[in-house]
Amino acid sequence: MENKLNEVPHRRYNILTGEWILVSPHRTKRPWQGKTEEKKELKKTMYDPGCYLCPGNERAGGETNPDYSKPFTFVNDFAALLSDTKEISVNEGLLKAESEKGICKVVCFSPDHSLTLPLMEVEDITAVVKTWKKEYAELCEQDFINYVQIFENKGAIMGCSNPHPHGQIWSQSSIPTEILKKSDKFLEYWSKNSRSLLGDYLKQELEADERILEENEHFVALVPYWAVWPFEAMIIPKRHLQHIGQLSSDEEMAYAEILKKLTIKFDNLFETSFPYSSGIHQAPCDGKDHPEWHFHMSFYPPLLRSASVKKFMVGYEMFAGPQRDITAEQAAKRLNEQSPVHYSKH
Amino acid sequence: MENKLNEVPHRRYNILTGEWILVSPHRTKRPWQGKTEEKKELKKTMYDPGCYLCPGNERAGGETNPDYSKPFTFVNDFAALLSDTKEISVNEGLLKAESEKGICKVVCFSPDHSLTLPLMEVEDITAVVKTWKKEYAELCEQDFINYVQIFENKGAIMGCSNPHPHGQIWSQSSIPTEILKKSDKFLEYWSKNSRSLLGDYLKQELEADERILEENEHFVALVPYWAVWPFEAMIIPKRHLQHIGQLSSDEEMAYAEILKKLTIKFDNLFETSFPYSSGIHQAPCDGKDHPEWHFHMSFYPPLLRSASVKKFMVGYEMFAGPQRDITAEQAAKRLNEQSPVHYSKH
Ligand SMILES: O=P(O)(O)O[C@H]1O[C@H](CO)[C@@H](O)[C@H](O)[C@H]1O
Ligand SMILES: O=P(O)(O)O[C@H]1O[C@H](CO)[C@@H](O)[C@H](O)[C@H]1O
Repeated sequence: MENKLNEVPHRRYNILTGEWILVSPHRTKRPWQGKTEEKKELKKTMYDPGCYLCPGNERAGGETNPDYSKPFTFVNDFAALLSDTKEISVNEGLLKAESEKGICKVVCFSPDHSLTLPLMEVEDITAVVKTWKKEYAELCEQDFINYVQIFENKGAIMGCSNPHPHGQIWSQSSIPTEILKKSDKFLEYWSKNSRSLLGDYLKQELEADERILEENEHFVALVPYWAVWPFEAMIIPKRHLQHIGQLSSDEEMAYAEILKKLTIKFDNLFETSFPYSSGIHQAPCDGKDHPEWHFHMSFYPPLLRSASVKKFMVGYEMFAGPQRDITAEQAAKRLNEQSPVHYSKH
Repeated sequence: MENKLNEVPHRRYNILTGEWILVSPHRTKRPWQGKTEEKKELKKTMYDPGCYLCPGNERAGGETNPDYSKPFTFVNDFAALLSDTKEISVNEGLLKAESEKGICKVVCFSPDHSLTLPLMEVEDITAVVKTWKKEYAELCEQDFINYVQIFENKGAIMGCSNPHPHGQIWSQSSIPTEILKKSDKFLEYWSKNSRSLLGDYLKQELEADERILEENEHFVALVPYWAVWPFEAMIIPKRHLQHIGQLSSDEEMAYAEILKKLTIKFDNLFETSFPYSSGIHQAPCDGKDHPEWHFHMSFYPPLLRSASVKKFMVGYEMFAGPQRDITAEQAAKRLNEQSPVHYSKH
């Protein structure tokens, strides 16, 4: 069945959002005369005196970073959400607005400026996972926080303004759009089957074995059937966990290990420090139980043909819906052809 | 009320999609050390021998363009959708896919390589509007076409691979995601009030007069209350028209006129050929009546602070929902401070 789909324009259904994506596999032959990006060389300096995230340096907001050796978090100096926002609401005819409270944090993954996840030791990535877990728990304890979005923008073309290895956490009162969509679909399936939608999907993927990238005792990395970005990937825990707060210490390590393996494949694909935005989708912490939720992490990498040609999600994609050229199976195959050793170590 | 919103983080509701957008007006003070884009100078050559869209030249697909003098359309040489796709459908457990038929066309706005909409004469833009109208009607006549997406990607940073003034039309069998969302909201309002949702919104905006950019006898251009992109704008016909096929010839001209005025403001803002993706949202042509629909055109321009610093819709935006820094009112004010004369003519 899949093979036929490698040749014809088709739509695939995203079981988690209920939305379709257009796939045009025959379109890869299109010549590219458009914009190209600079190829990023790997960073060499472990400490950059001009970097506001390196240990001991002064930040843009004026504070000085401690001389940290493990992952280091702080409240974003230019936070999009604030904890002390006063309540305002607008409800005038067709104009509707509401003030929003939240806390935005920055998580430095490592004191070493030159690193990125694929180049870090599993042990040190485990420390990042533990930090996410701790932050998730602490933020959720705040009464006014009902959802915690952990994410990383990697690479200048993903809007990252500082190459020091870091991610962000934006937590807020209301449940964001993308989470509402997934909550709906998870709940629909759970109500009908009393099983995890993503758990059942994972079983089917492991059997089909066409889109699996990595697997260990506790996690699987795969290209989802409905992938939007050319080399989109997803990390799914085998156990039906609602959020990262529930990770056992074995699972923390297994998560770190699969993170490293997946991001090495990414870097090796075009021999570049592979840009992406990644994010963890998990149950809201709104005081309710969410047995329907199954946490997962997604990677949305923009590169399409090489280190310098990316996929543009523009006109058609903005106004109609997402469109991709290569199929999920072709993407998985390309990624699985990569060496498990980082190209810089060859 | 609006003024208070200029200071606090808040969410605004998009009445057309039912989704919220996060606004962080206090965040504009954030320093930018990230990626910058090249400033685009205006093109000077009216004919480029290497351009595959100029009259008389050979296209990437091998065909030769006629020596056209008015807008010229042809079927995309590397179309994402094809009219002769055979029917396939996958329905295996949680994997769901369907083949999709369609027709993709390219519309050259002018034979003059150096032009863009703001630099074209109203008469010549009217010819473009007439071409959209004709294409819409012809594509809709095809049994297998149920929706027609007209759009333009302008500028290399919007994935446009050829600077010749042109747009595209992708038409297809299924109704795309963004249209489904709007159809829902239009229908909900229509069923309750027997009036156009967008018509009522337009009245409220004209009264408030805080986000209006341009107005003529038949059209209004404004920054929608729920704008996502920094300088997002919308063109709305005053008459309750479901699709561009219903435009009178007076309306065609008024549409062209407001298109020119709006895009001049855009170009003048940062004295650059302002990049954007624009698109027309209109009723599906699926054989049903759509009295609920009110056609409109939106512009999604990425520039934020200058000709070289754009807004990145990345981590938080991809995983949670759209976020913007300046408010819709601030954006409208900035645009309205611009001269009505194109900066190149000063
Ligand atoms: O068709 P073009 O101009 O070659 O391509 C451009 O517009 C398309 C439709 O929005 C996108 O799918 C492409 O990513 C973009 O580069
Ligand atoms: O917070 P940063 O890294 O300065 O900014 C980056 O990530 C944010 C969250 O996805 C985006 O809103 C910004 O557009 C992007 O440049």
